[in-house]
Amino acid sequence: MSRAPAVILDAPQMGENIGAVARVMANFGLEDLRLVNPRDGWPQERAWAAASGAHWPLNAAPVHASVAEAIGDLQLVFAATARPRELALPVLTPRQAAAELAKAAASGIATGLLFGGERAGLETADIALCQAVVTIPIDPKFRSLNLAQAVAINAYEWRLTQDEQAPPAFRPGAPPASHEALMGLYEHLERELEAGGFFHPPEKTASMVQNLRAALGRAAFTDQEVRTLRGVVTALARGRGKVLEKLARREKGDEA
Amino acid sequence: MSRAPAVILDAPQMGENIGAVARVMANFGLEDLRLVNPRDGWPQERAWAAASGAHWPLNAAPVHASVAEAIGDLQLVFAATARPRELALPVLTPRQAAAELAKAAASGIATGLLFGGERAGLETADIALCQAVVTIPIDPKFRSLNLAQAVAINAYEWRLTQDEQAPPAFRPGAPPASHEALMGLYEHLERELEAGGFFHPPEKTASMVQNLRAALGRAAFTDQEVRTLRGVVTALARGRGKVLEKLARREKGDEA
Repeated sequence: MSRAPAVILDAPQMGENIGAVARVMANFGLEDLRLVNPRDGWPQERAWAAASGAHWPLNAAPVHASVAEAIGDLQLVFAATARPRELALPVLTPRQAAAELAKAAASGIATGLLFGGERAGLETADIALCQAVVTIPIDPKFRSLNLAQAVAINAYEWRLTQDEQAPPAFRPGAPPASHEALMGLYEHLERELEAGGFFHPPEKTASMVQNLRAALGRAAFTDQEVRTLRGVVTALARGRGKVLEKLARREKGDEA
Repeated sequence: MSRAPAVILDAPQMGENIGAVARVMANFGLEDLRLVNPRDGWPQERAWAAASGAHWPLNAAPVHASVAEAIGDLQLVFAATARPRELALPVLTPRQAAAELAKAAASGIATGLLFGGERAGLETADIALCQAVVTIPIDPKFRSLNLAQAVAINAYEWRLTQDEQAPPAFRPGAPPASHEALMGLYEHLERELEAGGFFHPPEKTASMVQNLRAALGRAAFTDQEVRTLRGVVTALARGRGKVLEKLARREKGDEA
């Protein structure tokens, strides 16, 4: 059996729902639960009460300050959300997503499923950190799906892939880089773009950043590629800094 | 669309669970809910509170005195239960069951899914009234599945049989850019990298170019993204050119 996907709950509101998520994770053999900013703090008694004995995912659940931090060590993360909104990310059914995750996990890749809070769902900036969106085929007449149910459907589909023994073939060669490494690349690029006056008009910065991250994220860069791309950013921006420095020194007159 | 299966809850204990069942039925387009001897009587306010607005299955739910009565008008009923016990009934996965139910419903056959109460499950005598058993593939290490979750998995599988239109496109929105547009991006990037001294040692240029192209190509950029990325390259390299120019002009002494 491959390592099951981590389940990341972003800003969950109700302790009962966190417990219900733990329970259904246990039903389908998942155990790596991670929380981002639970509304009512952590730990919460009501979560344990609602878990019907599935305490181990709760006992081990870390609390993170951001989605980026929570998925730092993961290499392939899908966001469970009804609407892909403006991001150009692949949209998968739970079945397709489970197949992708299983293939990846069978190759030793650390995977995760990201779920939004009960009311607000996920922020676009966090969806943009993921490699694809998983959309449950819900009746458009009644879209209000309970958080634990959304986890259940995806966990169930994951489990089916494990009963069928997926072949290990995510892709040839090196695995995708961790999200931490990706974030390093994104932030490096964005700093240099900021310096280069790319973000114009300034109020569009957030959406420009999101679109860039989503576009680049689709490539699922390896560690080596992330390093190369950081070199690319440095090489493109480099001359600028050096020449500016030289100019500054010259203006101050302290050059021979 | 065929008529969706009825959901029959035998001796449900908690009003919250009945409401959660109604909610998830609505999520997946089911509406015919039937109750057999609900422990706390009927109606129960807590059911409506838990349904998050999915009131119509609750409003219409009849209460029956026995499973036999509740399924009287149905023609094909499967019992959702973990253990087939001593009965010689076919055991189906939720997926197989949904396929059977959909085939039957498409021929105008009235179908149903029977679920037991939270603690006791179904009595063998009631299972024996059904045409098959549906067993959700649960981790044997933690079998305690919430009632609404069990309904969710089966309702989800039913809905998939009804969604015959192709699953959501691989991704929304724009198609990938042409290779011509991609080549424009690659060559633009590579010119600037060359100018920035990135290709080092020079004899490795060809393989570095190939690796970069392969990594970026995996993202299957759209036309809009290609334009954005060309802007990125320009923004990163821009200062360099301008400053160099300024420096050159200054060196020639033709600046005011």
